[in-house]
Amino acid sequence: MIREGRLHRPTSGIAPHFVQANLAILPRDVAFEFLLFCQRNPKPCPVIEVIDAGQVEAALTAPGSDIRTDLSLYRVFKNGELADEPDNLEAHWRDDLVSFLLGCSYSFEYALIANGIDLPHYGTDRNVSMFITNIETTPAGPFSGPMVVSHRWIPQDKVVRAVQATSRFPDTHGAPIHIGNPEAIGISDISTPDLGETWEPASPDDVPVFWACGVTPQTVAMESKPELMITHSPGHMFITDLNDEDLAVL
Amino acid sequence: MIREGRLHRPTSGIAPHFVQANLAILPRDVAFEFLLFCQRNPKPCPVIEVIDAGQVEAALTAPGSDIRTDLSLYRVFKNGELADEPDNLEAHWRDDLVSFLLGCSYSFEYALIANGIDLPHYGTDRNVSMFITNIETTPAGPFSGPMVVSHRWIPQDKVVRAVQATSRFPDTHGAPIHIGNPEAIGISDISTPDLGETWEPASPDDVPVFWACGVTPQTVAMESKPELMITHSPGHMFITDLNDEDLAVL
Repeated sequence: MIREGRLHRPTSGIAPHFVQANLAILPRDVAFEFLLFCQRNPKPCPVIEVIDAGQVEAALTAPGSDIRTDLSLYRVFKNGELADEPDNLEAHWRDDLVSFLLGCSYSFEYALIANGIDLPHYGTDRNVSMFITNIETTPAGPFSGPMVVSHRWIPQDKVVRAVQATSRFPDTHGAPIHIGNPEAIGISDISTPDLGETWEPASPDDVPVFWACGVTPQTVAMESKPELMITHSPGHMFITDLNDEDLAVL
Repeated sequence: MIREGRLHRPTSGIAPHFVQANLAILPRDVAFEFLLFCQRNPKPCPVIEVIDAGQVEAALTAPGSDIRTDLSLYRVFKNGELADEPDNLEAHWRDDLVSFLLGCSYSFEYALIANGIDLPHYGTDRNVSMFITNIETTPAGPFSGPMVVSHRWIPQDKVVRAVQATSRFPDTHGAPIHIGNPEAIGISDISTPDLGETWEPASPDDVPVFWACGVTPQTVAMESKPELMITHSPGHMFITDLNDEDLAVL
């Protein structure tokens, strides 16, 4: 439906329980360093699949797909600047482009909800809070910079369960990076996120819990000002044929 | 001690509970495809660290180390043929070499033993049985071929525990690939392993259990006959500063 232009909206709530992925497309000449950056920073950058240079099908996780047409909105960056926001990549595709599909928070949010943890933004068009932390990623080649985290308020009596439930999914950011005091990871004011929206706790006892965020690899790659980089437009993810449970380590 | 030539033997039983690693060194021009092969086949090829081209220190997992001197025995292959078995790499080092440290079975064997599962070869100079299976790895670039597995007899009432204990360690091959009937994965005779030694079950009720083996990436790489490939000599592993528990996902 996306390929045929019949579904042109963010993918939250679409195809529930199928794994959705962040997209980062880069030229082959920086692909090794970018894959190495992901290997060194698996919590913000869990790799679901890498599509070889010039290939357009996610053969392992979505046979029959075409990465040029199967997202409803893309962003094209040239030398780190937004140059286009097309609904397909026909005008931008090159044979030296390598496509990285990276884990996204939808799978672990499903795990939280399945464990009785309410997430007020889930299934709406609103976004979580995201913060740039003082936690440095491990560099690789031209790629380096601070880790971005997503934030969710978790009821005090559900924090342990939240750790357990998300630990099963290392390929969708896994266990939290941090629990509690935001200042410990360089967040001075939890009501003013760097990205996304502000959320109030549902109860004064709710605990701030932070997970590594898939925005990290995009911001880090962009900082290196690659000649060309293509990503999904926020919220317009690539939908794979994998089920969330296919990614669970146990 | 290894660097100074004062310890020249297989590393089994040395520095207990520190993570040991398989070594594969390849030229930069095939490094992306080899890393991609590892990403696509994480059970046989879990990446502990990649040392950048020309660098010799495993800065993340063994600061101060030198990959050219800190294993007690290496194998140097040229175009897929064994060309040398030196105790350091001074005569072979080049600035375009990328070093891959891959997870090894010692960490998960420690987990099995900690859970009361006896492994008769553990801490001896004898080796487990290894078999070439009919399970194909997922190819990347020039790298493809069958998965090699290691085999251990597990008491019937410990099989579930063996799955649980090793699932915690995806970076050292993780949960078994297969339990029971060897023919299901292309092993016609369990008493004639393709590599390593034959083991009899301690009890007729023991179950054959198979884990993905770190020999896989070496055999697969060798099949592609790279111009130069350097590995550890069997049993002479690289010892990191990580503890086994550092690799546990939960």
